[in-house]
Amino acid sequence: MSNRLGSQTISFSRQPRLLSSYTLVGPLEGKGPHALDFDEILPDDVLGQKTPEKAERLMLEMAIEKTLRQRNTKVEDVSFLLAGDLLNQITSSTFAGSTYPIPFLGIYGACSTFAQGIGLAAALLQGDFAQQVLVGTASHYQTAERQYRYPIELNVQHIASNQHTVTGAGAALLGFGEEGPQISFATFGAIVDMGLKDAQDMGSAMAPAASSTLKAHLVDTGRTLEDYDMVLTGDLGKQGRKMLRLLLEKEGFSGLERLQDGGSQIYSERQKAGAGGSGAACIAVMTLGYGLNRLKSAKAKRILVVATGALLSPLTVLQGESIPCVAHAIAIEA
Amino acid sequence: MSNRLGSQTISFSRQPRLLSSYTLVGPLEGKGPHALDFDEILPDDVLGQKTPEKAERLMLEMAIEKTLRQRNTKVEDVSFLLAGDLLNQITSSTFAGSTYPIPFLGIYGACSTFAQGIGLAAALLQGDFAQQVLVGTASHYQTAERQYRYPIELNVQHIASNQHTVTGAGAALLGFGEEGPQISFATFGAIVDMGLKDAQDMGSAMAPAASSTLKAHLVDTGRTLEDYDMVLTGDLGKQGRKMLRLLLEKEGFSGLERLQDGGSQIYSERQKAGAGGSGAACIAVMTLGYGLNRLKSAKAKRILVVATGALLSPLTVLQGESIPCVAHAIAIEA
Repeated sequence: MSNRLGSQTISFSRQPRLLSSYTLVGPLEGKGPHALDFDEILPDDVLGQKTPEKAERLMLEMAIEKTLRQRNTKVEDVSFLLAGDLLNQITSSTFAGSTYPIPFLGIYGACSTFAQGIGLAAALLQGDFAQQVLVGTASHYQTAERQYRYPIELNVQHIASNQHTVTGAGAALLGFGEEGPQISFATFGAIVDMGLKDAQDMGSAMAPAASSTLKAHLVDTGRTLEDYDMVLTGDLGKQGRKMLRLLLEKEGFSGLERLQDGGSQIYSERQKAGAGGSGAACIAVMTLGYGLNRLKSAKAKRILVVATGALLSPLTVLQGESIPCVAHAIAIEA
Repeated sequence: MSNRLGSQTISFSRQPRLLSSYTLVGPLEGKGPHALDFDEILPDDVLGQKTPEKAERLMLEMAIEKTLRQRNTKVEDVSFLLAGDLLNQITSSTFAGSTYPIPFLGIYGACSTFAQGIGLAAALLQGDFAQQVLVGTASHYQTAERQYRYPIELNVQHIASNQHTVTGAGAALLGFGEEGPQISFATFGAIVDMGLKDAQDMGSAMAPAASSTLKAHLVDTGRTLEDYDMVLTGDLGKQGRKMLRLLLEKEGFSGLERLQDGGSQIYSERQKAGAGGSGAACIAVMTLGYGLNRLKSAKAKRILVVATGALLSPLTVLQGESIPCVAHAIAIEA
């Protein structure tokens, strides 16, 4: 029996599970409406490190180590580490990865990286290539600002459609077992580029990619939005969230009240974080924090995460290119 | 039966094959000793494009399209495109990927990206998640120089241990069929960081990673170097090639005459390309060009490709960090 479903979805009959996970966020995220959903709120975003890049890397290592500790799992018993982040050459992930003596697979999907990693990890488990797989990602406001925009020391003013990069990290250990939410489907997105060029408004650029992957998921699985207690997109932000609703409304989809967006929700209005959160860590901590808590507390039985990524670089923006975007979806069931 | 073998290797009993492939290189590579191994030698490295980044992207698209054309395969019949490159946020791959309406999985392993992609593609096929999978990568001397070193306009002098980024692209279509070389094993590497910091000599930094993955492959599969007609590393360059031999000699390995290195061989001495070629395209075109030609002409029945990557970034070098390296190996059999 094929594990492929339709044009973009793969299915997992062997029930790979999220055996353990860990989320940590910076102080700003720790003052937001989802503070209680995260495993750890860091007292500051420097952690005694000389550079924010070192801090980002350390956060990823902390998330990985605490994920392992929760199950008393030795890293040597993990078959693969899949990790990626926003930094050039994904150095937060590769430097964190260099501390573990296990095969490392670098992945890149911008802010969709986490879902790509979970989907691939589930495939490696279902295909009997692995006993346990670690997935991790991180982002940091300061490292992203200075790479994508301006160093924070310049204090350049943000505009309303800007998103604020989440400082934090998330890691998950996937494998087989008696307990833990199951990954039932992964829908991998095709890249969608609608010609939008405004790097100050990536939510609008990403919304069509979210719509494309969501629709492919529903067609491939025969499910509707109502089959999910929550469809968590991320990180569209307020702008992109609105756009996605418009796109789906126009095509007559019902069940739009199931839609939530990680980026739009991680900060409160009074935190003045523009259109909301972004960064590779955002959907990771919102899924492993907020999402899994909803499943644990039985407020939800089945959630769909549709993680979005804007696949631009500072150079492509300077060269006047449009913004290709992608979204990867994973279905998680209690 | 598990598809996992030892600590780092996965095996493929369903015999995913390289159904078709295409290699194209720039004019310099087209004057090297392997010119006849490549499918196409470009007349120039600009291809009428406004920027070298656009040229790199176009090369990747050309490699993908000509790979598909060789089998009369429609891109819609391909389940996944796996691609990655050296540019920040792998934009050559994502922009090329945005022209195809199929799921895109971004991967990053620096110059080892190609082997990581082939290994993952074979896993997706073996696990019954895909009918056919495309893998592609590209690099360009000018884009890499200005990102990692200096714009070529500055004409900064190179030193003997510098490697020269290959201008070119390679793509391969994997699937099941009656013909085509088979992927039998993939050994994914752990990241190795020996503390070396000289970004002008990445070959020496990468040699221990090549040694680590090669040894893991031999232990996991029970094979020896003599079981392969050729072990093609890449891109260690002359410096790293020497280092790898020393490391293996010291541990008493025999069969070292089977070792060849893609980076060391792609240019001739009189081409003054420092320690040899590098770049994500180098091992891709050397494997799909030189390697497959050796299999086709029955000069080899079984080759092992050990692709190496230096996982640094210009920022980590400026911040005084050492160079984490990785190597991924794939066994290809006639």
